[in-house]
Amino acid sequence: MSDVLAVGSIAYDTVETWAGKRSEVLGGSATYFSVAASLFSKISVLAVVGDDFATSDIDMLQNKGVDTSSIIKKEGKTFHWSGVYPKNGDAQTLQTDLNVFETFNPIIPEEKRDIPILFLGNIDPDLQYSVIQQMNRPKCIICDTMNFWIDKKRESLIKTVSLVDVLVINLTEIKLLSGKKDLIEAVNKIHQLGPKVIIVKNGARGANLFYDNKHFVMPACPVDKVIDPTGAGDSFAGGFVGFLAKSLRDKDGIDFKMLKRASVYGNIVASYTIEDFGLDKLKNVDHNMLESRFSNFQDFVSF
Amino acid sequence: MSDVLAVGSIAYDTVETWAGKRSEVLGGSATYFSVAASLFSKISVLAVVGDDFATSDIDMLQNKGVDTSSIIKKEGKTFHWSGVYPKNGDAQTLQTDLNVFETFNPIIPEEKRDIPILFLGNIDPDLQYSVIQQMNRPKCIICDTMNFWIDKKRESLIKTVSLVDVLVINLTEIKLLSGKKDLIEAVNKIHQLGPKVIIVKNGARGANLFYDNKHFVMPACPVDKVIDPTGAGDSFAGGFVGFLAKSLRDKDGIDFKMLKRASVYGNIVASYTIEDFGLDKLKNVDHNMLESRFSNFQDFVSF
Repeated sequence: MSDVLAVGSIAYDTVETWAGKRSEVLGGSATYFSVAASLFSKISVLAVVGDDFATSDIDMLQNKGVDTSSIIKKEGKTFHWSGVYPKNGDAQTLQTDLNVFETFNPIIPEEKRDIPILFLGNIDPDLQYSVIQQMNRPKCIICDTMNFWIDKKRESLIKTVSLVDVLVINLTEIKLLSGKKDLIEAVNKIHQLGPKVIIVKNGARGANLFYDNKHFVMPACPVDKVIDPTGAGDSFAGGFVGFLAKSLRDKDGIDFKMLKRASVYGNIVASYTIEDFGLDKLKNVDHNMLESRFSNFQDFVSF
Repeated sequence: MSDVLAVGSIAYDTVETWAGKRSEVLGGSATYFSVAASLFSKISVLAVVGDDFATSDIDMLQNKGVDTSSIIKKEGKTFHWSGVYPKNGDAQTLQTDLNVFETFNPIIPEEKRDIPILFLGNIDPDLQYSVIQQMNRPKCIICDTMNFWIDKKRESLIKTVSLVDVLVINLTEIKLLSGKKDLIEAVNKIHQLGPKVIIVKNGARGANLFYDNKHFVMPACPVDKVIDPTGAGDSFAGGFVGFLAKSLRDKDGIDFKMLKRASVYGNIVASYTIEDFGLDKLKNVDHNMLESRFSNFQDFVSF
């Protein structure tokens, strides 16, 4: 059985950054997440793709040990996103074609309902809620979200968030969701909703982890050249959850040290992702590369 | 003799942030710098103020052990800056009245030319150059600058920078000065100009230190509530230089560990500064507070 069930989107992306442009490259939150998490654990993905989805892309995931048997192929085109990155700043979406993703309704196969760790990518919170209900009490539920759902489906999102153990969210989003502009106040508000662990991603500025009244602060792992930031947040989540799932194989409860190390691995994996377009770098990352950068990162931050 | 000679501006600031508004409060780069640095070392300030400058403000500096004998009082008004901080973002200057600062021409008194550490606040690079020329070969020269001088006096600034050991600069500025948009490339370019040590401040995102092909990354020290970011960069420089000067009392050369600890102290001091308006918090910081937050910061970043 897989360690982690990941539910999210698989997409083809057209991306333009300061370093160039790529058309129709494999992307989507579940894709980055799974490839990143597969460095540590056995991942099963539940997602939908169109009939244009390339066999070579399925092969790539399988080569990473990802269980792709719950990637449903539907008539129509795969979800397509296109965006452009200004020199400094967040992606600007040029176009979103949901295509087959528009009617995505995740049904968990019987044999996957006992997977111990559940990762909910940033899909409609009503679908996230439905997935949680279908599972047999996972050990740990990790959830991502985005501005769009905070704006459009706040009540549903809060209902889902109340059931998750770990909320992965970015700084803008947690301020929006909590209605608080100070990070600590925002975190306290979200803790009250349910999640015991909150990870606030802050792009190039790193991330903050909050658990049990403890706070871990981590700068982004430095890289020589950022080529394409797409997928950094999902890769972070993948590295984090992958490491956590591996640690929870032998242990029942989470602890702060485990969460901190999981965050650092998320950080390391994301630092590789952004060094090339799409998954070009991430898919070639191996354990030696992880450990080497983990050790460099320790040097970077120790004093 | 003082450990550090600091040359810069003393001002009265009118500041509005999300937390309120304060009019005509003591500020200026040399002020924040000196109060911060005085926590570690004996500081002498060279600056100019107008005849409106309050005796109580001189008293405050003297109570911190700062040598104020080179603060020149001139006929006219003290430098005045007013600005407003948007919820997320950098200060927007509403008004700058240079007043007596407009004709500031720092003359180093004979007895201060042997001070071993020189800090050049972000004044006109021609004045910074003149100060360096007047000194008797300081052990270490630390220099700050700002966008305005990079735009208006690039050649003069490069001439000054070529003589300094440590350049303290923010991320936007180093990109502008180097013409490189990647941090590492920018740093390499500036190293070639002269400075062996480069500190890139990045506001709420922390700072990066570069020395001898080594790189230290530090997130900003978390605080519960930011009240007023004014003076954070100057306080950082003050904590950094103050600790460095103290360390160089017994040792001739700088080393990476010393620089890293100095940066962390800069970070800690700045984190206190932003917790209240102007110098309201910083001026009440003592050694116990420093050490307590230093130890917390170690916990925040260790994994």
